[in-house]
Amino acid sequence: MIRFACDYDEGACPEIMARLAATNLEQNPGYGEDPHSDHARALIRAAIGRPDAYVQFLVGGTQTNQTVIAAALRPFQGVLAASTGHINVHETGAIEATGHKVLALPDKEGKVRADAVDEYVKGHWADPTHEHMVQPKMVYISHPTEGGLLYSLKELEALRRVCDEHSLYLYLDGARLGYGLVSPETNVTIRDIARLTDAFYIGGTKVGALFGEAAVLLHPDLQKDFRYMMKRQGGMLAKGRLLGVQFETLFTDGLYTRIAKNAVDLAMVLRDALKAKGVPFLYESPTNQQFPILPDGVVEKLSDRYAFEGWGRVDDTHTATRICMSWATPKANVDTLLRDLLPLL
Amino acid sequence: MIRFACDYDEGACPEIMARLAATNLEQNPGYGEDPHSDHARALIRAAIGRPDAYVQFLVGGTQTNQTVIAAALRPFQGVLAASTGHINVHETGAIEATGHKVLALPDKEGKVRADAVDEYVKGHWADPTHEHMVQPKMVYISHPTEGGLLYSLKELEALRRVCDEHSLYLYLDGARLGYGLVSPETNVTIRDIARLTDAFYIGGTKVGALFGEAAVLLHPDLQKDFRYMMKRQGGMLAKGRLLGVQFETLFTDGLYTRIAKNAVDLAMVLRDALKAKGVPFLYESPTNQQFPILPDGVVEKLSDRYAFEGWGRVDDTHTATRICMSWATPKANVDTLLRDLLPLL
Amino acid sequence: MIRFACDYDEGACPEIMARLAATNLEQNPGYGEDPHSDHARALIRAAIGRPDAYVQFLVGGTQTNQTVIAAALRPFQGVLAASTGHINVHETGAIEATGHKVLALPDKEGKVRADAVDEYVKGHWADPTHEHMVQPKMVYISHPTEGGLLYSLKELEALRRVCDEHSLYLYLDGARLGYGLVSPETNVTIRDIARLTDAFYIGGTKVGALFGEAAVLLHPDLQKDFRYMMKRQGGMLAKGRLLGVQFETLFTDGLYTRIAKNAVDLAMVLRDALKAKGVPFLYESPTNQQFPILPDGVVEKLSDRYAFEGWGRVDDTHTATRICMSWATPKANVDTLLRDLLPLL
Amino acid sequence: MIRFACDYDEGACPEIMARLAATNLEQNPGYGEDPHSDHARALIRAAIGRPDAYVQFLVGGTQTNQTVIAAALRPFQGVLAASTGHINVHETGAIEATGHKVLALPDKEGKVRADAVDEYVKGHWADPTHEHMVQPKMVYISHPTEGGLLYSLKELEALRRVCDEHSLYLYLDGARLGYGLVSPETNVTIRDIARLTDAFYIGGTKVGALFGEAAVLLHPDLQKDFRYMMKRQGGMLAKGRLLGVQFETLFTDGLYTRIAKNAVDLAMVLRDALKAKGVPFLYESPTNQQFPILPDGVVEKLSDRYAFEGWGRVDDTHTATRICMSWATPKANVDTLLRDLLPLL
Repeated sequence: MIRFACDYDEGACPEIMARLAATNLEQNPGYGEDPHSDHARALIRAAIGRPDAYVQFLVGGTQTNQTVIAAALRPFQGVLAASTGHINVHETGAIEATGHKVLALPDKEGKVRADAVDEYVKGHWADPTHEHMVQPKMVYISHPTEGGLLYSLKELEALRRVCDEHSLYLYLDGARLGYGLVSPETNVTIRDIARLTDAFYIGGTKVGALFGEAAVLLHPDLQKDFRYMMKRQGGMLAKGRLLGVQFETLFTDGLYTRIAKNAVDLAMVLRDALKAKGVPFLYESPTNQQFPILPDGVVEKLSDRYAFEGWGRVDDTHTATRICMSWATPKANVDTLLRDLLPLL
Repeated sequence: MIRFACDYDEGACPEIMARLAATNLEQNPGYGEDPHSDHARALIRAAIGRPDAYVQFLVGGTQTNQTVIAAALRPFQGVLAASTGHINVHETGAIEATGHKVLALPDKEGKVRADAVDEYVKGHWADPTHEHMVQPKMVYISHPTEGGLLYSLKELEALRRVCDEHSLYLYLDGARLGYGLVSPETNVTIRDIARLTDAFYIGGTKVGALFGEAAVLLHPDLQKDFRYMMKRQGGMLAKGRLLGVQFETLFTDGLYTRIAKNAVDLAMVLRDALKAKGVPFLYESPTNQQFPILPDGVVEKLSDRYAFEGWGRVDDTHTATRICMSWATPKANVDTLLRDLLPLL
Repeated sequence: MIRFACDYDEGACPEIMARLAATNLEQNPGYGEDPHSDHARALIRAAIGRPDAYVQFLVGGTQTNQTVIAAALRPFQGVLAASTGHINVHETGAIEATGHKVLALPDKEGKVRADAVDEYVKGHWADPTHEHMVQPKMVYISHPTEGGLLYSLKELEALRRVCDEHSLYLYLDGARLGYGLVSPETNVTIRDIARLTDAFYIGGTKVGALFGEAAVLLHPDLQKDFRYMMKRQGGMLAKGRLLGVQFETLFTDGLYTRIAKNAVDLAMVLRDALKAKGVPFLYESPTNQQFPILPDGVVEKLSDRYAFEGWGRVDDTHTATRICMSWATPKANVDTLLRDLLPLL
Repeated sequence: MIRFACDYDEGACPEIMARLAATNLEQNPGYGEDPHSDHARALIRAAIGRPDAYVQFLVGGTQTNQTVIAAALRPFQGVLAASTGHINVHETGAIEATGHKVLALPDKEGKVRADAVDEYVKGHWADPTHEHMVQPKMVYISHPTEGGLLYSLKELEALRRVCDEHSLYLYLDGARLGYGLVSPETNVTIRDIARLTDAFYIGGTKVGALFGEAAVLLHPDLQKDFRYMMKRQGGMLAKGRLLGVQFETLFTDGLYTRIAKNAVDLAMVLRDALKAKGVPFLYESPTNQQFPILPDGVVEKLSDRYAFEGWGRVDDTHTATRICMSWATPKANVDTLLRDLLPLL
């Protein structure tokens, strides 16, 4: 069985495994106050061009979203997100668990548009009963989105403007950030993200780490006492050094984007091969996840040798599927898949 | 200025004011453990035909919704509601404040349909990632709805069936219940509601009381230790006798429905008069709230003498308005309004 | 049966009942945006000498505490209180329900001492693991305390200083404030309280109103968007006019303190009579609640004609009891009680 | 610098590092639904003698406590704990973050005594105002405690009895469980714990794992839908296989207790050597943490070569210190410490 079901099927990239082994018997203080974590913070600040950034490491994405959002909002404030956003659908109410409503904006493509934010927030304040409604205070976006799509620089700048106009925080979930940064179709750099958002996180779990996300807090309001929030949310790792070691490895010699590139390159190979056969796609993803719409029989025939995730039926005879490449995917796996799949189309 | 802006512009019906005055210097134990509250409970149990019902009185609707819903759900469970439902829009996140997500079901008319519930819940359990999503466990409906509409007996029975099939609680928000019970177009009695739901509340605030809602808990799971929940949510009134006195008055000699009938009769007068002039309505409400769509100029011309609430623009030249009648509305006010309004149409 | 069990056994003082009746059919906007509420706010601002105070009305004490405290604190912050404080013992976890820990300070008399606050807060920040502990950010005091005691002006000033030194909010629960203000043994005025605290509430429920508390927010941080908090906590009364009418009545012609004085005068009569007989007291309360320590047989003998609350056994043969006077207690009731009680001592 | 500051200064034991490396490129499903996690569960069920146990793996202790406790309690219920208990002091309000109060029981030694539980719970239900107080529903104990102490079998059985009598859950925090199980002074086995508690966790972070705790849920009420709770609390690790691999390694060939024994043996060496010199101890710990009371000068003199944690001043010239041994401590480190320390006493 070859798995394309997600981008965290394997452990960590070999460089990280080696560094964890090499540092294993070092004695370090706990909770992220060790030299590896400090070094990783410095490397990240340099990479993003923001010496004022406050960086903390958490174990997973839901935990990071929950902690950042709850740190930013007063109790009656909510966070705007695409209705398909991870925080709205796939976190078992982790945001609501902290007392906050996710204010879902419908969108066909799963992106948050600046004009939809503008309309929503203006509508809120214009409503004479606005005190009876959750106050919008933050915009949550994923880059790439759940569907693998990317914001353009222009779109991000427009979001920044609308956030400034309405005093909203802009928060970017970068669970798959690496795969977005190396897409052949992006014009957004990590420095743009660090310039335009109030907070974002650099995903490790899905991009080569064993686990771990680097929360980057840019707005001073979000920095203050953030470690208390981490502890309260159960998100402060005792052996914080493990996160430090992983991120210092990922941010040394461009490892983070180098391993991400493998995944995106292979995804493009798959995309091009399927497009050449006329296969339609649910989203036009330029990143490591591809969503081809396949005839039902085809999916079935492959299911004993390959694992994908179904992504919803499209019509009576077709299903969208998600095929994920990761830092760990060997080219041979994609070749094999194409060899088995193409003849069925 | 004559107000038709809502059904709580006035104080309480004279019978209640008189009883509060008459009992004012009685000494009673606090927190709803007084003879008036017990008497009111007995009257309600008799009226709804459920001797096993557990009845507690709270001050307001948001508080009641929050307390009942949080008492019923485990932390990762959510409540299905129409996207226009009061708990989803107009309670400043009071449900999320207790850690629970409102799972919004889109619907044109603001009603929750049994088949939409069925589809949602089946979809949840069929999804292999269902543990990553909020578990649906309760259905919330309002009767009348925010738009003044009513469920038919058949619709309520279908909701009961789907809730039974999927082990969901059915909870009915009766903020305006009285106005629903006396509608000329309903076939649902309070006994039907007590037979078909797991919990509901009988609204006092909008139907003749100074304030107060009677939470009626039918499912044994919801009854246990409910008073702890009330206290925790800040919803246990020290002088509980005030709620007891009001509800024993409302449930003596049919006062509750008698005063509600005044409001609905006047609403029908208004509706018929406007329909005769060809005025369209946003909802076909058979209850005390009417939502005529009026030309903009008309609304403006009346605005110095009458208060309504705008209910959203319909097109470039028309606005839906909400005109509320209450137990307290004098027929003369409606006559005056029609005299001023009809010539403008 | 004559009840001395609490100070909310009766309804409201006659002046309030009369005003509620007189204004009953007025039409008013809801949610505290009516002229009566505005007038009451102006009267309170004048009475406390703080034109910058932000005043909102809530229904009960637990709700008020919960709303003010949750409005003030970030998620990882807690509130210091006496271990016997109402929020620590008698609110069924209403503060924890909003996610905050009550940091209990032990004290024999149930008062919070400035030096205990100082020691606690210094200890917090000096501890290298302080991020693993709830951050103290507010001091909660009751005046009078649960045991009827009062802070002296000097004690309040010391609390203010320690709060300033450590950037803590000082919040005063005035559920029985009226009874404190008129005590023959106090040197603290409502203006002192308004000068020295960041927030306090003026209790209506226990001092002559049907229900209602006036939250007075002095620190600008606590004022902002407070009405959103009220709604979220289920604490925004639909017919806010009821609270407005009651507080404008209480703050007209000194009614609030005038009716409070009746209770305290009678309490002093009781105290003096029992002291003359050598009865010891649990607390040396100079307010409306008295805590005499009585032989067990005595309490029993009176229990068919009088209701008090037991306040804990003191030794094998004695029990502390709480005897409450209120605005509504007739002198005759105290005379009768003394006539029955004194011969048993 | 040699660190004795805590038992998580190093990474993981070599067996775990080797297994993580060996399985690194395996493809596995996420979220703990992989063969390694299933195998680890089977090994744990066998080791504890409870084939009906439900086992889930989480990353850290605070997260585990928060998730288990919030899964067990209704909103108005609280958890009894020693006032020095980890959940009461060192989790930045993580329990309160889920809406629950920690009901602190004072105790000199930091243990929860069955009779103190009995008295508290009886007192709760006997109080006529019990609905105004948090309802006790769970007992939380640590084994070893924060001070390294152990419950005897008799004490655990007494706690079980009192929990049965009052329908309380008994939950044991086993952050350092391994060090307790191998103490020369214990008569409690892991099978006793699995027989007597409703839930407990087997600590990995402090006993040889990189990170991870195995939550063992024995009472059926706590098992149901626990994975939803994990996800909601941000505690479901994407690459759950990492936890599975670690616990299958720890529970193969007795590794868990074998490495724990190293720590306890060395702690006994230290204890005996200091006792021989007449050094007093804050707690009579028979486990890996030792709390000698040392003259201030001594601590200072060692502080440039050794890291310990101070554990509070005992008098004007003495400080209690915590000296931790772990699975990773070499005997040479203890020898060196004693060689430097003993001459100073």
